[in-house]
Amino acid sequence: MNGAESLIRTLLAAGLDTCFTNPGTSEIHIVAALDRIPEMRCVLSLFEGVATGAADGYARMMEKPACTLLHLGPGLCNGLANLHNASRAQVPIVNLVGQHATYHQELETPLASDIEGIARPYSKWLRTSSAATDVGRDAAEAIVAARTPPGQISTLVIAADAAWSEGGSSAAPPRIPQPSMPDTKAIEQAAVMLRSRLRTAILLAGDALYGTGLAAAGRIAAATGAQLFAPYPVTRIERGAGLPPVERIAYVLEQGAEQFKEFRQMILAGAPAPIAYFAYPGKNSAFLPAECDVHTLAEANEDRTGALLSLAEALSVRGQQALAEQAPRPALSDGELSLGGIASTVGALLPENVIVVDESMTSGRGLMAATKGAPPHDWLGNTGGSIGIAMPLAVGAAVACPGRQVLCLTADGSGMYTPQALWTMAREGLNVTTVVFANRSYAVLKREFSYLGIGEPGERAAQMFDIGGPDIDWVQLGKSMGVPAARVTSLGEFAKALRDGFSAKGPTLIEIPL
Amino acid sequence: MNGAESLIRTLLAAGLDTCFTNPGTSEIHIVAALDRIPEMRCVLSLFEGVATGAADGYARMMEKPACTLLHLGPGLCNGLANLHNASRAQVPIVNLVGQHATYHQELETPLASDIEGIARPYSKWLRTSSAATDVGRDAAEAIVAARTPPGQISTLVIAADAAWSEGGSSAAPPRIPQPSMPDTKAIEQAAVMLRSRLRTAILLAGDALYGTGLAAAGRIAAATGAQLFAPYPVTRIERGAGLPPVERIAYVLEQGAEQFKEFRQMILAGAPAPIAYFAYPGKNSAFLPAECDVHTLAEANEDRTGALLSLAEALSVRGQQALAEQAPRPALSDGELSLGGIASTVGALLPENVIVVDESMTSGRGLMAATKGAPPHDWLGNTGGSIGIAMPLAVGAAVACPGRQVLCLTADGSGMYTPQALWTMAREGLNVTTVVFANRSYAVLKREFSYLGIGEPGERAAQMFDIGGPDIDWVQLGKSMGVPAARVTSLGEFAKALRDGFSAKGPTLIEIPL
Repeated sequence: MNGAESLIRTLLAAGLDTCFTNPGTSEIHIVAALDRIPEMRCVLSLFEGVATGAADGYARMMEKPACTLLHLGPGLCNGLANLHNASRAQVPIVNLVGQHATYHQELETPLASDIEGIARPYSKWLRTSSAATDVGRDAAEAIVAARTPPGQISTLVIAADAAWSEGGSSAAPPRIPQPSMPDTKAIEQAAVMLRSRLRTAILLAGDALYGTGLAAAGRIAAATGAQLFAPYPVTRIERGAGLPPVERIAYVLEQGAEQFKEFRQMILAGAPAPIAYFAYPGKNSAFLPAECDVHTLAEANEDRTGALLSLAEALSVRGQQALAEQAPRPALSDGELSLGGIASTVGALLPENVIVVDESMTSGRGLMAATKGAPPHDWLGNTGGSIGIAMPLAVGAAVACPGRQVLCLTADGSGMYTPQALWTMAREGLNVTTVVFANRSYAVLKREFSYLGIGEPGERAAQMFDIGGPDIDWVQLGKSMGVPAARVTSLGEFAKALRDGFSAKGPTLIEIPL
Repeated sequence: MNGAESLIRTLLAAGLDTCFTNPGTSEIHIVAALDRIPEMRCVLSLFEGVATGAADGYARMMEKPACTLLHLGPGLCNGLANLHNASRAQVPIVNLVGQHATYHQELETPLASDIEGIARPYSKWLRTSSAATDVGRDAAEAIVAARTPPGQISTLVIAADAAWSEGGSSAAPPRIPQPSMPDTKAIEQAAVMLRSRLRTAILLAGDALYGTGLAAAGRIAAATGAQLFAPYPVTRIERGAGLPPVERIAYVLEQGAEQFKEFRQMILAGAPAPIAYFAYPGKNSAFLPAECDVHTLAEANEDRTGALLSLAEALSVRGQQALAEQAPRPALSDGELSLGGIASTVGALLPENVIVVDESMTSGRGLMAATKGAPPHDWLGNTGGSIGIAMPLAVGAAVACPGRQVLCLTADGSGMYTPQALWTMAREGLNVTTVVFANRSYAVLKREFSYLGIGEPGERAAQMFDIGGPDIDWVQLGKSMGVPAARVTSLGEFAKALRDGFSAKGPTLIEIPL
């Protein structure tokens, strides 16, 4: 077999069966191998930021990597911003990038570039396969690296002649590294803190925010009075009626400080201590009071779920009922569109088992509160602050979970970064309902400007935060890429459009003019 | 003044008065400075690839840099692919990127990233300003670096606290480096070659393709029988009736070899020797016959125009009439859409002094031949092979030359990389007529697949080259961003739409379904 075929067979043997791609000439032999090997599902995107964001969403839901297949340095460049987000999400991605044939690389051709240099800032593992005989082995190592806890990006660059030459052999499924348990002292110390009855926060991340880990945290919280928190930029959190309630840390510095002012202890389960998103002149970036002790129960690369189970054991809370969210669902109401009314409508209508992808930024601030009592669902956030993640993430989540509905909450500012994702939703018939909060501005920047204490933006600054003039018509934009779309002008219309979206086969889009 | 103000004042003092931007929180103090200093024109884009591509187009027409202003690592990531193209175009760009405050940088916040690492592959000059006192001086050095011949990208990263702190001072306008003349031996040798009367090609690049340089080359060609060529990926070329005819080298290897098979000498005026775009199994990548002598008259960073003038002097062709394009303009015809008919229509209607931006790829192959005899115009191409450059480049050219019409030739595959450029065209009222060849496929990849001798694409490969299903509706897409748009179904309709576009104030879009 040639190198290209050894690549695909190695990926499949290790359980990687989904590829988000936009290939080019230098990847054509890999495309030819994919042509012959139908077990790998290929999802085409019109822009590589969609492919990398989708690989992130897929990994968040599947807890295993998808691969990408990108065209040389420029294709990688276009995928880089969502790799930034994925690196912060700590998800596994096997990022495949084509390269010119080895003997063509030193020539100053138009598409020549320093691919490894471009990949390095976001690749925890990075290698170029320059011979067919190496490709299978390198792919296996890339998979192991990607799946090294907590999950990371490995980039494998494949020279065209390594792909097209004979001599490849597929590697056996590699041993996947498992996270190690933290030191027992770390668990004992957490138990001591929780028994102290001082006001204690437990900050969860990664798989501690869903499934077994979250259930254990819920039992610990119920038994000890500790409160559960999630980072502001959350990778994935399971929430809703009957599940342990977890409060997300606020984005705004003062609000975060307010959340923690009564706390004297914080236990970190795979999360870093909270810190301000940005620095502001003359302001302290710390969220925690000086007298709050911070203890690491588990590092991000350790077994967070195992640590919480051991902690529950140490506290003898095995039989304890976990904390369970009891919040009522908001009522539906009609009338004028308002952010509160929109949030209530989402809270009232959210179906069970939906995956919510949230990049609604300023407009969506009330959404988590309004959906506390909704049936259990997953919530995925923007982990790295690079906007334009929501629709790609929704693509990946929908590909990963074809039986579930995806609600994608985005805004006109962030949505315009990767609108091409709508086309992939239409092509693949993905069950994604995209809600666009169209406030015609980079509202967060207006707020940040004022927040800096340099007065209100003048006319020229305001122009740089204003994305009306022309307003983006999301109904036409959605339809231009094959996604049925509607603009709503009242809460009643929004409720109807949302219900229609949840019951539709394939994607829909709802524009909410604000 | 603070660092931000010293930055803007230094740029303005050096003649940089245009900024293509999408700023964020870390750049807010620079936005505040721009708010107070109206001399800097700010052009907002909804995606950074539009900003960097526009800076490229601006530089090609103005022969001086614009600046960008990008938000942290992710904003830079999004601008990187068109910086790839700009680096191949050898144009000057002062690429400004915000960074967290110095004391915030080591924290693992969501938006933290290795900005210098991301910038390095495409930045010939790279520095981070970490103190207000340094910003003016660093900006001046960035300008000098960008304007070092032939033109390059310099990236200046500005820490937020360097921008907001007092103590800045604007730098005096720096001395701009001028290209040096090549060695007289290089000129004498070229003269000897041209006097030999062996079949000789002169390959021009940079400013040798327009104005004084091109005129000198035209006189040399007329006097010696040499033939003028341009690289396939052309930055800017002035062409049309009465101007020296320059033939572009073909993209396809065999066609390029055919162009040069009779040539025994090639003189390089700032261009590298032609080489195949991609490598193909078992094929030689060389365009030139083995017996063709190649001589460098001027390197890219030398004075190409000066070298041609000296060469004309050495050949005593000062009074010589330059070669002048005599090709007839094609006739207008009505009837069914065909690539030939479309090319003829463009050739028949192209107004004088238009700027043509060409990324029409496979569909546009007949366009240069059909426009040979059109009134004088400039032609800008995709220099780096990273698709998605045309509409951003058109934005930059239109901002640079408000008195000229811009014809932007793109396709559905490449256009979908940076559709956000349409919004900037609408907002700024730019005189750009965008023609989208909608062939519903990555046609170049279909051809490349067949070309590799691995058979025709199967069903799965064909799916990866097919971007129909759903077809992109460019009329709705254009209108969604405020650009009047129409789909044409005959050559007559196309001619009318093209005429309307050239006479419109502001942008229009024409979709040609193929």
